[in-house]
Formats: sequence, C-alpha cells, structure tokens
Amino acid sequence: MKKHNFSAGPCILPQQVLEKASQAVLNFNNSNLSLIEISHRSNDFVAVMDKAQALVKELLHVPDGYSVLFLQGGASTQFLMTAMNLLKTSGKAAYINTGTWSTKAIKEAKRYGEINIIASSEDKNFSYIPKNYSSSEDTDYLHFTSNNTIFGTQFHEFPKVSKDTMLICDMSSDIFSRKIDVSKFDLIYAGAQKNMGPAGTTLVIIKNEILNKTGRDIPTMLDYSTHISKESMFNTPPVFPIYVSMLTLEWLKNNGGIDNIENLNNVKAQLLYSEIDRNPLFKGVAALEDRSKMNVTFVLTDESKQETFDKLWNDAGINGLKGHRSVGGYRASIYNALPIESVQVLVNTMQELENTL
Amino acid sequence: MKKHNFSAGPCILPQQVLEKASQAVLNFNNSNLSLIEISHRSNDFVAVMDKAQALVKELLHVPDGYSVLFLQGGASTQFLMTAMNLLKTSGKAAYINTGTWSTKAIKEAKRYGEINIIASSEDKNFSYIPKNYSSSEDTDYLHFTSNNTIFGTQFHEFPKVSKDTMLICDMSSDIFSRKIDVSKFDLIYAGAQKNMGPAGTTLVIIKNEILNKTGRDIPTMLDYSTHISKESMFNTPPVFPIYVSMLTLEWLKNNGGIDNIENLNNVKAQLLYSEIDRNPLFKGVAALEDRSKMNVTFVLTDESKQETFDKLWNDAGINGLKGHRSVGGYRASIYNALPIESVQVLVNTMQELENTL
Repeated sequence: MKKHNFSAGPCILPQQVLEKASQAVLNFNNSNLSLIEISHRSNDFVAVMDKAQALVKELLHVPDGYSVLFLQGGASTQFLMTAMNLLKTSGKAAYINTGTWSTKAIKEAKRYGEINIIASSEDKNFSYIPKNYSSSEDTDYLHFTSNNTIFGTQFHEFPKVSKDTMLICDMSSDIFSRKIDVSKFDLIYAGAQKNMGPAGTTLVIIKNEILNKTGRDIPTMLDYSTHISKESMFNTPPVFPIYVSMLTLEWLKNNGGIDNIENLNNVKAQLLYSEIDRNPLFKGVAALEDRSKMNVTFVLTDESKQETFDKLWNDAGINGLKGHRSVGGYRASIYNALPIESVQVLVNTMQELENTL
Repeated sequence: MKKHNFSAGPCILPQQVLEKASQAVLNFNNSNLSLIEISHRSNDFVAVMDKAQALVKELLHVPDGYSVLFLQGGASTQFLMTAMNLLKTSGKAAYINTGTWSTKAIKEAKRYGEINIIASSEDKNFSYIPKNYSSSEDTDYLHFTSNNTIFGTQFHEFPKVSKDTMLICDMSSDIFSRKIDVSKFDLIYAGAQKNMGPAGTTLVIIKNEILNKTGRDIPTMLDYSTHISKESMFNTPPVFPIYVSMLTLEWLKNNGGIDNIENLNNVKAQLLYSEIDRNPLFKGVAALEDRSKMNVTFVLTDESKQETFDKLWNDAGINGLKGHRSVGGYRASIYNALPIESVQVLVNTMQELENTL
C-alpha cells in the first residue's frame, strides 16, 4: 500500500513522475542508455534542461529579462550567493526574520555588508509573519522567506519595496503552489525538494540587469553571470534531479498549472485547518492569518493523548507527521503532489481520536 | 541492445546498480515510499549516507584522522573551496598545470594567495605529464590533477612534497580505478560522475587537522569544517546521487575491490593501446609513458577515413567516442564499469577499418 506521505522535504512527488524517473534510470528515451550514464552535453539531456527552463517560465509567467537557472548547493548556498552578488561593497540590505532559514540567510549575508533586520517574529517563536516594517531608501535589497517550513507560517501578502531596492525571496517551500507576480521580484530561489523535484538542485529566477554592480570579485561558481551565460551548464549539472524536476513541472502543467493547483491547495489546507479548529483535541501553532498552506503545524491540547494519536495515524499509513524539534507537536506538509485523499485520511484519524474518548 | 558506452562523464555505471536505483525510485527498502520522497534525516537515508562513507574508507583504506564528505557543486566548487580553506592569507600554493581542469583550478585559487605554476605541459597541448619540478619550502600546498580526462594523460607517479606542504589532488576521473596511499594526501576531491556514481555529488577525503589555519572568514557552506561536523548533512544532501554512489561502491567491493578493478583496468587499457600502436591507421595522442588508463585519446593517421570509421563504430553500438574539441579525434573512456567486451568491440571496429582498405 502506498503511504500517505506528509514529509516536510524531500517530500511526496507525483506517482507518474516516479514511474517515468524509474524507467529513465534503466533506459532513457529508448536510447538503450540510462539517463544517468549519458553526457550532459548530449542532445537528449540538453533537451531536458531546455524543457525544464521553459516549463518554469511558462508556469510562472516569467517576464522577459529574467533567467531561469538550475544550480547546486541548496538554499544554503543561495544565502551567500545572493549577498555576494547583490550587496554592494559597503552596501545595506534589509532582512525579515521569520524563522530558522531566514536566520541562516542573515548570518551568511553579514560577511558582505550592513544587514538590517527590519522585522522579526522571533519574540513568539516565529509563529507569525511581521506586518509593519519598512526599509530605508538606500537599501540594496530586501530579503524574506515566503513560507516557513518549520513553523508553518506564510506570507500571504509580499513586502513592498521602493524602486531602488531589489526584492529577493527564498521560496523553497511554496514555489509553484500559488500564483506569483515574478515581475515584482528581482531574484527568487528555491531548493527543489518540495514542490519541484528531488533534492540536489536549486532553482534561481533572476532579473539579468541586477548583476555586476557590487564591485566585488566573485568566484566563478558563485557568480550568477557564469551560470546565466552557460545556461546552467558551466560544469556538469545534477542530471537526475533536473530531469525529475522537469517531469514534475510537466505533471503540474498537464494538471491545470498553477491556477488549478492553487485551488486544490486552498481546499486541502481548508480541510485540515477546519478540523484543527473544530476538534477540541487539537490546536494550531501559527497565527490564524499567517497560516501556511504548505506546512500545517498543530499540537494536541492534551499531551497524554500522544501515544494513542501516533498509533492511529501510523496505522492509517501516514508518514512524516512528526513536528520539527523547534516547534514540537505535529506538522502536516501538504505540498502540491499530496492528494486530498491523504488529507482526508489524516482528518479521519483526528476524528477517530476524538471518538475514542 | 545495450550500448557500448565510452562516454567521458557522466559515464557508464554497472547494470545492476542501474536496476537497484530504478527500483528505489519506485519503492525504497520495501517502505512503499520512493527514495526521493523521504526525509534525508530518516533512518533509511542516514543508513545510506553512513554506508557510502564506510565504503569509501574501506575501499581506499582511508586512515584515521580523515573525513569522507559528499558535497555538491562538482570539482569546480572544490577549486575555490580548497584555496579558501587551505591557502593562508598571504600564503603560497604550487600548481601543476596539466590541462583544462588544472587551469580552472589555478584561476579560482588566485583570489586567495600567491599561486606558482611550478610545472605545465601547456607547450604541447597538455599531451604529457611534467616530470621535473619542485615547490619551495614555504608552499602551503601543491595541487595537481591525477588524470586529465580531456587530454588522456595520467600521473603514474605522484608528486612528492616536503612535510610542511600539503598535497591536494583532483582525482575526479580516476579515483577508485587504482590503489592509492591516502596517507600521502591531505585532501582528495572527485566529482562522482566517472567511477563513483551519477552527476550531482562530489567526494572529498580530507585530513581533519589541516583545517582552520588560514585566518580567513569562510562562508558556512564553503567551510569543510561545517560538513565534517554535520557529517555531510548540514543541509539537504543530494539524496539520489549519494544513493547511487553507495550502490556503485558496493558493486566495486563485491567485485574484488580496488585490487581487482586495477588489474582489469590495466588489461582493458593494454588491449586498446596495443591496437592503437599496431594499427597503422591510428596513433595515440598522449606521450607513451603518461597515457591514461581511463581516457584513451587517439586520432586517425588519415583523416579521409573518418566517415568510414564513424559508421563502423556507430553500427557496432558504440556511444560517446568523439574526442573533446580541444584535442579532436577520438576518446575512449574506459572507466571501471565498462566491460572488457566493449573494448574488444572497439578494437574489432578498428581492425575492420584496416580490412576495408
């Protein structure tokens, strides 16, 4: 029996993507060669890379003047690359601190200029999204994390910046889950391993004109310009993660694209949060208006029920529900590929717990 | 029909590795979950990472005091990480330039100190390995590339350094192909996509005591200490490439380890070079004593035969034989997983070409 996979990342991928990926490892495009034993410069793989880029552009309506890159090193590498490439020598950047990943981004950026934390929700264990803040006119960029995987909060309105300030967003855990206006951003990055594909590649969507203005000498591999000019093929790219990302984006397109998945994600989130709010045995962790539609964090109102509840969901074939140690309780990650049936199974176990009393 | 895959990298992997990898993408360890949709912190994946590290240590007899890391970013990222982590502020490093990759390593290192190119074979299009060189006493490290994938040359004796100079080697294209004495090296790195696995992870074997001596502030992701202390799990590792590397190392162990593969590699190289030397229609590119046992570069003595020869090997099911544009002609990459039967098929086509005259 297939599990109900609520893992926070790496996370569930569509079954047909897994089947195609499995087949390509044996015999790719009927070439009698495996996807993972051919040159990344072969026509077959160049077509994969081109298609993956094209699908990102199509699904997110990426405007002209932006490049789409598939890099390595995860969001953790983007923490330093964004600052290194965009923060002017003796420049200033503004950061909104909404959790573990924002905190790490701030730490790395501090090497390259003056970092102002213009808003933070650290005072309440990152359980909300700060609302009132502004960055000064001479800020090179404002950086924020659109969805906080660990704490279960999400920006439902994005920060606004003045025209001389760039807007940079870590969208690792909610990209492709809802419509966004890419033209409002100067750089978006995202580790693949939530809504895009398996671990091992990082998506970067970057406005070309923002580069080469820092006066800083940047190592070749850390310079976005390198990867733009070589179309993500400066060195051997992570072939398999990019291929599976391409398949996942293709699946998304064939299933109605972002419009459709956003509706489904709203329904799934509504189903689960309604039960959390209705069922006296549970309560949500995040502030109501900032609840994430990707990572639903909740706790038992009576911790003595933990053993019973854990048995119920384990028996129901649910996987990956344990909360992160920074929050405790439970976290249901309900990414794009998670079917609504799995959310219903979880809701059922929550109701069963109530009925066992 | 399975192809005879002479691709230079990503390259041929053992058939049973491909079969296991394909299965794990559908259902990993009978968990009813895919390898690529589970948490990297799950017991099942932590066991993969541990086993991959243990196999590297066992196969190469890595001494105590060394760490084995699986990173991202390829050898191209190691070019800067090695210099950033090991070259003292206002220090000196010695480089041997034996080709495209050495040249790139030198370029990145120059940001961090004084780089002395103590030997180079650039004068003869990198067709040989320089023999007489020495580094001055105050050199922090000597860096070289053990096998030059593009030009088909290989160090059959390694450089010697004084006890205060570290020895660093890019072994991307010949690691696990022959016995090495790891204790003679301070740091070895290798992109996975030749003898270890698919593209997307980079092996680093590092002597722990050499770190934290530069006086330089290093970004977290670029600091080897980060990855040593977190056992390659500081951030989400490239799950699939590491798993397939583990399978490939397991295959190597089950097939007699390095001793056995080195013998086979010698036989395969001997078979092909003998034909190149015997057949008047071909000649080798690299100096005799520096010929690579991994990448065999050769040209036609009469270029008018090219079309006929290309048809012969294509018809025989051979893939990936075209030489790199920097050298021209042909390159047969005969990595660990390439069966001797495939080399024999290539030799047969070379003899057929002779017989068509």
